[in-house]
Parts: sequence; C-alpha cells; structure tokens
Amino acid sequence: MTTVRLDLAYDGTDFHGWARQPDLRTVQGELEAALTTVLGRSVDTVVAGRTDAGVHARHQVVSVEFPEAPDLDRLQRSLRRLVPADVAIWRVAPAPDGFNARFDAVSRAYRYRLDVGPVADPARRRRAWHVPHALDLAAMSEAATAFRGEHDFASFCRRAEGRTTVREVLAADWTADDDRRVRFDVIGSAFCHQQVRSMVAWLVEVGRGRVAAADTAAVLAARDRAAARGAAPAHGLTLWEVRYRPELAEPPDLP
Amino acid sequence: MTTVRLDLAYDGTDFHGWARQPDLRTVQGELEAALTTVLGRSVDTVVAGRTDAGVHARHQVVSVEFPEAPDLDRLQRSLRRLVPADVAIWRVAPAPDGFNARFDAVSRAYRYRLDVGPVADPARRRRAWHVPHALDLAAMSEAATAFRGEHDFASFCRRAEGRTTVREVLAADWTADDDRRVRFDVIGSAFCHQQVRSMVAWLVEVGRGRVAAADTAAVLAARDRAAARGAAPAHGLTLWEVRYRPELAEPPDLP
Repeated sequence: MTTVRLDLAYDGTDFHGWARQPDLRTVQGELEAALTTVLGRSVDTVVAGRTDAGVHARHQVVSVEFPEAPDLDRLQRSLRRLVPADVAIWRVAPAPDGFNARFDAVSRAYRYRLDVGPVADPARRRRAWHVPHALDLAAMSEAATAFRGEHDFASFCRRAEGRTTVREVLAADWTADDDRRVRFDVIGSAFCHQQVRSMVAWLVEVGRGRVAAADTAAVLAARDRAAARGAAPAHGLTLWEVRYRPELAEPPDLP
Repeated sequence: MTTVRLDLAYDGTDFHGWARQPDLRTVQGELEAALTTVLGRSVDTVVAGRTDAGVHARHQVVSVEFPEAPDLDRLQRSLRRLVPADVAIWRVAPAPDGFNARFDAVSRAYRYRLDVGPVADPARRRRAWHVPHALDLAAMSEAATAFRGEHDFASFCRRAEGRTTVREVLAADWTADDDRRVRFDVIGSAFCHQQVRSMVAWLVEVGRGRVAAADTAAVLAARDRAAARGAAPAHGLTLWEVRYRPELAEPPDLP
C-alpha cells in the first residue's frame, strides 16, 4: 500500500459540508468522484477536519491509500482539472506508510470572521457573520482566555452519544483589522462538533454585553449545552490550517 | 424638487451590470424596483459609474430627484429592507439642489485584484483574476507610470462613436500584499468603457514579460484598440470610491 496526502481548500458556500451524502453536493463527494475518474475505481478518503454545511477551508488535509504507487504529478494535474472551481488542490504529495490525515493531525486552526456594522458588506456576506451591534473586544478577549487549556467542552458541543467532549484549546484570540473586520483565531488539538461556532456565539453575546465575560468559566463548568448560546452561522467559519509533526510532512504554500 | 444622494455597494457576481435592461437582473433595476415600492411611483436614478456585468462596487453613488422632500430616515430603512443581499445601502442623505452623481463626481477610484499562483484560491474566485504565471511587479509599476496624466486612451477603450477617449489618470499603482495578493489601484477623473480592465490586461502582459514596459507609451500614442491586449475579466474589478468636492458631500464610513 502507498499513502498519498492531498492538501486542499474549498469555498463551503455551495456544499452540504465535507462528508459524502447521497444526492447532496459535498466536498468529499466531489473529490472522490474526481479520484474515481482518474483511477478508474472508487477510493476512500480520510479527512483531517470534517466541516459542516457552509463552512469553508483554506487548508484541509486528506489521506488516501493506494494498492500501488500512483504517478503523483499526473494525479495532481488530473485532479486539478477535474475538481469544480470551488475546490482547490494545493498539492498531491507522498506520505509515510500508514499516514492518517485525521489521527496524525496534532492541531487544527480555525478562523471565524465577523462583519460588524449597521449594514452587511455584500463583499463579505459569504465569509463573515454580519453583527449589527457594537462589540466590546476587550471583554470578548478576556472571555476567550477561559477557553484556553484542557476542558470538558460539553456546553459548547453538539451532543454525540458516547464521545468525549474533553478538548485542549491552545490559542483563542480576537483581532480587529478595523472597526468592521473582526476575527477569532482558535487553535486546538481537535474540536467537537460545532465547538468553534458555539464559542463564537457565546463570545459575541459577551461582546454585546448580554452576558458577562466572567461567566465563561461557569458555563464551561456546567457541561450543559443549554448554558451556552447556540452556534454562530456556518458561513463565518474557515478551517484555517491543519498541522502534523514536522517529520511527517511540510505544509504547502498557502494563500 | 429635492435631490437625494444614495451611497451603496454591491457584489457584481450575479448582476448583469449596473444599467437597467429588460428581463435581466441589474443593480439599477433592483434599486429602482425598491424605490418604486417605497414611493408608489417610478423614479429615475443617475449613477456615478456605470459598471459592466460582473464588476463589483465598494462605493457607488446615485442621485435621485424627488418632487417633494421625502422622509430620509424612513427611506433608508425601507431601502435597506427591500434591496437584495448583494446590495448594501450605506447611506441615504440629502444633497444640494441639482446634485448630479455623475457630472459632479471629481474622481473615481477602481481596484483590480489578481490571485497569482499555480492554483486559483476558491475564496477569491469571485473577486480576483487568477493569473497562474510569475509576474514582474517592478516592470508592471514602471509601465503603469505611463498612464498617469492626461492622454487619449483610445487604445484602452471600447469604441463608442462620437465620444472622447481623452481621460486624466491621477494615480496608478500596483501593490503586493503577499506573493498571491496583488492589486492595481487607479484613480481618474473618469474612465471610458473597459479602460481599467484594458490597462490591467496590458500591464499583466508586461508582468509576464510578453511585452515591454517601455512600449506602453507607444501603445497609448497609437490610439488603436488593436495595439493593446484586450480586457482583463470583469470579476477582478471593483469600483472603489467616488469623490465629490468637499462642499458637496462627506463620504459615509466605508468598509
């Protein structure tokens, strides 16, 4: 068996998320269809971060096992030609035997973008959540510090029976490029379902003054989804980067 | 008569340009339909910069004459509610008697964005022209200086019988935010049809080394459309800002 690593990006707007679903347009569905066309047989892909409908990826990683070594230059050229315009194949590269894009990932970074102002900016409507309220960035940043470290994020996870909701958040920072362009960058070992969007929904409530930054730790401790404030819209979220141990693979150049 | 000024933005992707056309979705058509709904009668709009199909606007200005003074707060609220999501009404404001958004404009600024790299970035595919070639930015900047000042831009204009093609370019600059994100900012008193896109097409040919920067002045002097290199795609172009004499109007806050 030969393992191949694909580094890719997509605009999530017109996809029903990553995971293949019958009769729905998904990124996995499009990618596997292209692979099938090139290889003449079906293949299974393993992905670093399954993204929900509407979520974008600047950097997503997929591993594929081949029974024998494919011509990677040809595979890269063919895939780039076959995938639709809302998917980019940054790179097709060899990977160590048994490389697994999901289990070998050591961290995932996500970016969530806000468009803050009385009127939504049409240029950013597919990639940023329009928030027509003044936000207290200092309070949002203070609240975000409570997420750092290892916690049970059950309050910020969509329930999945039997799965742990303990996760480690390595960084969680708000940045304002200007009054309108505000973003949340979060890095974690892994995230549970809807965790980033749920954290953002809470932090925006903090920014609006509807809940207190100091209550963040108590909401975490409650381990109760009802203690949080739902999830921010999918279209503001981008899977920003997936990292592996340096000996496994260098990342490609990313925009 | 009362004159009202509208400052707006739009994502040009799903519009057949600014100008009203039967059976086609245009920005003017959508805006006038919204005005008609609010006012109960049809109105005519005058626009600062007619944009082609696919061209975006961060800042566009429209003037409208009303037989009697409308309630501007109510008009602004209603228009914001009625226009589609790819149009933003930044502001509805009173204007001096006889204000004309087109003839009173003293300058228009346009931005043209490139996405430079082997693979198109899906996140920018609606707003940047993908150029899969190395570009010599220094040569492009040198060539752009030839456009500054007053010239007959016939080589860079789509022919329009009987209309002058003499225009004044006040600034024309290339900026690279990084290797991939390269943009051209140009300011002029006014521009002829397809002028900015034709200038960009020429300058990208310079950047690729297919024509010489030093030939730019000769192409201008030829006053012959065939001497240039066609037009760059519409979707890379954004009407960035329209300016008026300071005593006429302050611009609104823009993203």
